[in-house]
Amino acid sequence: MSPTITAFESSPDRGKGLSRDVRVRWALEEAGQPYDVRLLSFAALKQPGHLALQPFGQIPTYEEGDLTLFDSGAIVLHIAERHAGLFPEDANGRARAITWMFTAVSTMEPPIVEHGMMRLFESHEPWFEPRIAMIEQRVRTRLAQLSARLGDADWLDGAFSAGDLLMISVLQRLRSSNLVDEYPNLAAYVARGEARPAYQRAFAAQLAVFEASQAG
Amino acid sequence: MSPTITAFESSPDRGKGLSRDVRVRWALEEAGQPYDVRLLSFAALKQPGHLALQPFGQIPTYEEGDLTLFDSGAIVLHIAERHAGLFPEDANGRARAITWMFTAVSTMEPPIVEHGMMRLFESHEPWFEPRIAMIEQRVRTRLAQLSARLGDADWLDGAFSAGDLLMISVLQRLRSSNLVDEYPNLAAYVARGEARPAYQRAFAAQLAVFEASQAG
Repeated sequence: MSPTITAFESSPDRGKGLSRDVRVRWALEEAGQPYDVRLLSFAALKQPGHLALQPFGQIPTYEEGDLTLFDSGAIVLHIAERHAGLFPEDANGRARAITWMFTAVSTMEPPIVEHGMMRLFESHEPWFEPRIAMIEQRVRTRLAQLSARLGDADWLDGAFSAGDLLMISVLQRLRSSNLVDEYPNLAAYVARGEARPAYQRAFAAQLAVFEASQAG
Repeated sequence: MSPTITAFESSPDRGKGLSRDVRVRWALEEAGQPYDVRLLSFAALKQPGHLALQPFGQIPTYEEGDLTLFDSGAIVLHIAERHAGLFPEDANGRARAITWMFTAVSTMEPPIVEHGMMRLFESHEPWFEPRIAMIEQRVRTRLAQLSARLGDADWLDGAFSAGDLLMISVLQRLRSSNLVDEYPNLAAYVARGEARPAYQRAFAAQLAVFEASQAG
């Protein structure tokens, strides 16, 4: 039975590939697993039907038989545990890949999201200039540490893993700034992820949804 | 072989139990596993020796034979997978517990940390009052959603799990505000976690480290 995920009927990023269903689509493509998509309007996200599946009114969810999951990190981990292609074979390598998954969403992503939220919602506030500079510095600190650890390796720990999938997805959120470009090995790392055929298929699938929403 | 974790020699929260080694200590206590602790000064965190284990210069780390992990969420998951007491027996229940683990650190914790960082570092800035009100509102949105989902249950999904352990640890970071108290079921949930003997042992162990640092 194919799982069903939820995604935005009309993504607020206008098909740039930054909504979190893309992480799950990418994982399913790496694993070679077909899936169905149920599209949701913004209004539907806040309705009791969806809140019963996702208490925070977000996408994506993941339904497979009588199992319902939410949170893209947890869903990617579930897929990685059940199919080849996203975790190394050995238990220690798998535990390290999970370390990178948590690091992506809980160490790297929070200042990156704070930076993005400020640019979206506070650009006209009198404090925008001084405060965005402070947050940029926090983001740079994390990028510099990640860049130092990655060095000249292709991926964070051996072969491509679910840890790289989430880390690259997080770094993509900085695309509209130039911050990642200050660290050439990180920019190359993101490009390496985006060049994977599985990513290309995931990106194309979400873009097709957005384009269809505009054609209506 | 007992694992070795790292912790602050002198915790910046002065023994209040908010440093992230407590999450790992708590998990090890729930699992009934002995562990060793290596204490680190603030200076040591930024030295190459520690950065080789933890690229972001943080605690805790977890060393067990030739395996080194970092990120408290990933470490708690590793412990939960290997010992009874932190995950339900069935695979679907375990996947849902992992959903709550990711939700704790990537949906609930970021606005809570932003709130705490602003109070620590921006209280004298001219924008403090209007902006902290905005961030408090973001925190309240998440607390209200979590409160609605928890309802009158004891734990988030059946028996106590690693998902509750991380969620309660995240909510504790709001202790110096009154935000959790606005949601009586969440306040009771945190108190229920803190009453667990395993939590009490973890809290006492970190407090003893802080008190020893002050006695020197």
